[in-house]
Amino acid sequence: MPRIAQSADQPCSLARAARVLADPWTLLLLRNAFLGVTRFDDFQALSGAAKTVTADRLARMVADGLLTRRRYAERPPRDEYVLTEAGRASFPVLMALMAYGDRFLAADGPPLLLRHRACGAVTAPGERCTGCGAPLKPRAVWPEPGPDGHGPEFERMALIVSRARGRRRQASA
Amino acid sequence: MPRIAQSADQPCSLARAARVLADPWTLLLLRNAFLGVTRFDDFQALSGAAKTVTADRLARMVADGLLTRRRYAERPPRDEYVLTEAGRASFPVLMALMAYGDRFLAADGPPLLLRHRACGAVTAPGERCTGCGAPLKPRAVWPEPGPDGHGPEFERMALIVSRARGRRRQASA
Repeated sequence: MPRIAQSADQPCSLARAARVLADPWTLLLLRNAFLGVTRFDDFQALSGAAKTVTADRLARMVADGLLTRRRYAERPPRDEYVLTEAGRASFPVLMALMAYGDRFLAADGPPLLLRHRACGAVTAPGERCTGCGAPLKPRAVWPEPGPDGHGPEFERMALIVSRARGRRRQASA
Repeated sequence: MPRIAQSADQPCSLARAARVLADPWTLLLLRNAFLGVTRFDDFQALSGAAKTVTADRLARMVADGLLTRRRYAERPPRDEYVLTEAGRASFPVLMALMAYGDRFLAADGPPLLLRHRACGAVTAPGERCTGCGAPLKPRAVWPEPGPDGHGPEFERMALIVSRARGRRRQASA
């Protein structure tokens, strides 16, 4: 069981977890990692953060044990960022935030829908698929545009994600 | 359905919710509100934030629709801060963070345990009671010290919370 970050002075697990996860950029970068992104440029493009902010947050996430670096090229030396067990375990936090946003910050309907690949249903974000009741695992859900979700922002995101996933398929082939 | 905050430019409910909720102080203040705290001094004492930080976050939480102000004294004029529907709906986010902290940031065991008052069991933080399976509502769970949770920090917290709850009982009597 990895231990991440030094924030044990608060007698409250919520306070400790908040110090690691409660940052908008960190959460966006985690979302991108769950989508299959591993490279700096893709993290930056998908989050829309400045280069310095992206670098700062990725370094902090590595220090906190959410991501680990993996060398993918030697000349020039280049690392990619991969979710650790502690990083993957943040998934329920992201689901809870997404559910909250769908309910209170999406007057025109959810901008992204989650398709549960195991059963084929669109599920609300949460601990379990609202279609079949199975626990929702990160790799088992896939975003697709909601009623108002089409448009250049979504197309751009889909392109970056499918490129990142293509590279990963190639690497594991 | 209250709409809170203006962050609709991101085509992603997670990103929108993160802008409202992904701040360590905001989450601590929400936790305190769920514990029954309503007054500025108690919010500040329980969060350990500076006065200016507490004031800034409470004002932002009111603007975002998480809290509402309610006048409780006229001379001098004094307001307290009460959770709105949108504020109460953040509970699953707090539960997910607490579960994460219990798992990865509590090597000596969870500093706080949640007692589910409906069934009497200690439950893991989550959507449902791990004892009886019922959905966990904010008012139905109560924190108690974990194996390592006793000590001055916890005593101080318990004192502030019980005073705040006593005032609330008096006000509704």
